[in-house]
Amino acid sequence: MNYKMVAYLLGRIFIIMAVLMCLPLILALVQKEDTCVGFIVAVLAQLLLGFFLCKRKPENSEIYAKEGLVVVAGCWLLTSLFGALPFYISGEIPSFIDAFFETVSGFTTTGATILNDIESLSMSALFWRSFTHWIGGMGVLVFVLAIMPKSHATQSMHIMRAEAPGPQVGKLVSRIQNTARILYAIYIALTLLEVACLCFAGLPFFDSLLNSFSTAGTGGFAIKNASIAAYDSAVVDMIITVFMFLFGINFSLFYLMLSGSILQALKSEELHWYLGMIGVATLLITLNILPQYKGFLNALRYAVFQVVSVITTTGFITADYEQWPVFSQTILMILLFVGACAGSTGGGLKVSRVLILIKASFSQMRQQIRPRSVTALHLEGKPLEAGVVTTVMAYMSIYAFTFVASHLLLSLDAFSYATNFTAVATCLNNVGPGLDAVGPVHNFSDFSLFSKIILSFDMLAGRLELFPMIALLSPTTWRRR
Amino acid sequence: MNYKMVAYLLGRIFIIMAVLMCLPLILALVQKEDTCVGFIVAVLAQLLLGFFLCKRKPENSEIYAKEGLVVVAGCWLLTSLFGALPFYISGEIPSFIDAFFETVSGFTTTGATILNDIESLSMSALFWRSFTHWIGGMGVLVFVLAIMPKSHATQSMHIMRAEAPGPQVGKLVSRIQNTARILYAIYIALTLLEVACLCFAGLPFFDSLLNSFSTAGTGGFAIKNASIAAYDSAVVDMIITVFMFLFGINFSLFYLMLSGSILQALKSEELHWYLGMIGVATLLITLNILPQYKGFLNALRYAVFQVVSVITTTGFITADYEQWPVFSQTILMILLFVGACAGSTGGGLKVSRVLILIKASFSQMRQQIRPRSVTALHLEGKPLEAGVVTTVMAYMSIYAFTFVASHLLLSLDAFSYATNFTAVATCLNNVGPGLDAVGPVHNFSDFSLFSKIILSFDMLAGRLELFPMIALLSPTTWRRR
Repeated sequence: MNYKMVAYLLGRIFIIMAVLMCLPLILALVQKEDTCVGFIVAVLAQLLLGFFLCKRKPENSEIYAKEGLVVVAGCWLLTSLFGALPFYISGEIPSFIDAFFETVSGFTTTGATILNDIESLSMSALFWRSFTHWIGGMGVLVFVLAIMPKSHATQSMHIMRAEAPGPQVGKLVSRIQNTARILYAIYIALTLLEVACLCFAGLPFFDSLLNSFSTAGTGGFAIKNASIAAYDSAVVDMIITVFMFLFGINFSLFYLMLSGSILQALKSEELHWYLGMIGVATLLITLNILPQYKGFLNALRYAVFQVVSVITTTGFITADYEQWPVFSQTILMILLFVGACAGSTGGGLKVSRVLILIKASFSQMRQQIRPRSVTALHLEGKPLEAGVVTTVMAYMSIYAFTFVASHLLLSLDAFSYATNFTAVATCLNNVGPGLDAVGPVHNFSDFSLFSKIILSFDMLAGRLELFPMIALLSPTTWRRR
Repeated sequence: MNYKMVAYLLGRIFIIMAVLMCLPLILALVQKEDTCVGFIVAVLAQLLLGFFLCKRKPENSEIYAKEGLVVVAGCWLLTSLFGALPFYISGEIPSFIDAFFETVSGFTTTGATILNDIESLSMSALFWRSFTHWIGGMGVLVFVLAIMPKSHATQSMHIMRAEAPGPQVGKLVSRIQNTARILYAIYIALTLLEVACLCFAGLPFFDSLLNSFSTAGTGGFAIKNASIAAYDSAVVDMIITVFMFLFGINFSLFYLMLSGSILQALKSEELHWYLGMIGVATLLITLNILPQYKGFLNALRYAVFQVVSVITTTGFITADYEQWPVFSQTILMILLFVGACAGSTGGGLKVSRVLILIKASFSQMRQQIRPRSVTALHLEGKPLEAGVVTTVMAYMSIYAFTFVASHLLLSLDAFSYATNFTAVATCLNNVGPGLDAVGPVHNFSDFSLFSKIILSFDMLAGRLELFPMIALLSPTTWRRR
């Protein structure tokens, strides 16, 4: 393990985070809010630590896969620790574990909250809370698209598959810089567009900005206790639905569109499945909830919002779907596992991964029925390597074991089976709300501290595609070669 | 599709089933019960159909994998239809779908019931109900061990992987006869031993016999409304625990022991994991439920019974585990998915399959952390072929999709999320009880007819390792080459 290089990279991230945290600090100063001290402490702590770690670039800048995993996991974990400071120091979230949970939920763009009264927070705290979504979403884009070998961006799900000897930092940085700039531009442009649309729809600028941060990261932190339902506006619902949908699309498709290949982008198989699942789910739920709403369009409005909110793993709420028939709830819970497209800011298993599993299952069935037949799997028109299929399947297994272990540990709290199951599901898939005691009109405040730590781990593990967080716990990572 | 050969093989099975059904018929005649007519109709119908189909052996006796799948699925499905007749004609189960559900639950050794008052059934109906478990358990042993290529018995999970040109029936029969005779002998000997033990413990012969049938098939149909709790005897609990445990072991290990290789049998990796999981789960649950029971031994008695009952997918009940802490319930629900050893009469995913998934997941993790490292997977001391791992993973995917689809369809009934989830889980894993409305003191009677058909499909799919039932629905099976 090249500790010096890991520290150096983490140091750079701390400095960036300190700079970003100056925005809520300025807001706190302008508004003369009590959160000032917390933000100042957090900014200074990160600056000092950052400069200390980056003092001197290590001579040996070679990093391998395991250093990459540790940097990624460490970065999300430590910035969440620092990010929790303002909430904790100001006393707006009196328990540090709660503040940590809330910040992890922010950076992982989950949107699960422990707050019973969101509206009692100060403006700067609200800003920071939504801003973590936006930073987290951006971080994930870079993490998934720029750090992953670009040729595999849509197909392969391996992350950080660093060739040996691992990528020199020079190379890494230059590739990140190339891709990341374009991604940031798209990300910022879409966010600004949403802010404009929401302002135009009559929302105050502050609300527009913060809700756009949450949408962009497919996070789901709202600034009202009733989430988006508080605005009670069909136009706002529609705007946010459209933008949640857009942020759930693979960003490389936007990139393709910008370079003129609009038709090629529209041919994306993953996009078709994403659209198809949203369409079918919306139709089924609309018909299912029709008796509870006045008219088809009204039912459609709430159905499509919840469907898009859940499949993109945003987690905004406009209707208490626990009042809907169980059939609709079950559809939402299935979409919660599917998640958005790979290479988007959304979480979950990802549409393309589910697609690969479906194709592999059908191929295996055909194989059983006709052992002599040979069928090659294709995705996006290209043949799928056997290695990719195996990796996706292994990912599923690791996912399942993480799920089961978390579910078991969570059951030490005396909540219902459905609560525990959907709490793990919604955290591991970075959605936000679940069913029962973690349903759309409830929150995570009643869980024990131990459970909150488990769920924080799940949010981080889900967000970082499992491997980095599990690598932190694995002896293999820390053993000498 | 060689329809003539499929019909011929099914015909032979009908004749065997007719003969077996004479046992409850004799009992009905002796007891002068109203079920006589039903049993006579069912026996005659199967005999007539059987002789008609077997009239002439087809000239072309070649069968391929798909014919094998169709025969297996068709046999379980059709004998369940015939087996339901006595319940239905006698009026003891007034709805045919209910009678079908009950019989499927019997033959698949699930043990889920739609009966509110089991004790009101006639003796012959009770006998037939438990006897279906015993026949089903025997059928599965032959299906898994004799029909599968013997060399792969423990490792490979493919079933009916018939080499092309498929096994001639002559060969098939001779191989079945070799292996099946020994299996039957072990199965019958163990059953008789249990009957003797239960009689010795003071149970009436009828009760001893029927409970032994249910244990042998790891089924779980009881003849008392309170299941095994009705006897309220620690000795009975202990005897049944031991035999459930034995019937959950891979039968090839008994075979090994009989041929003198006791040490080799005890070295089985799957056996160690099976034991380990039972041990850990029992310990955790005992400690968890201790406050609810008087003394450690008392808690242990109920804990070990439920643990073994669930992991072997038997489903007998001595305690209403829904009164236990959620932690204990969650452990039981995890074991319900794991299931017993491969090559036993138990259902579920099977210990060895879970073991392969765990190993493959760890190997994938190591690969991510150290991309250059190469690790070969081993099971039972032998290297695992990549093909086996892929097949197990594909099996898991198909399992997951079957699960999700059934869960969604079941949610059309207005039951709770936990009810639907555990109902599918307990049927697909052939256990019997679940949680909430399908908990240990409830039954499946309130589900809609549609849901009962879905759950019947799940029981059959789970019992036959998915492929045969799905092949029935697949166009590939019925398409001409």
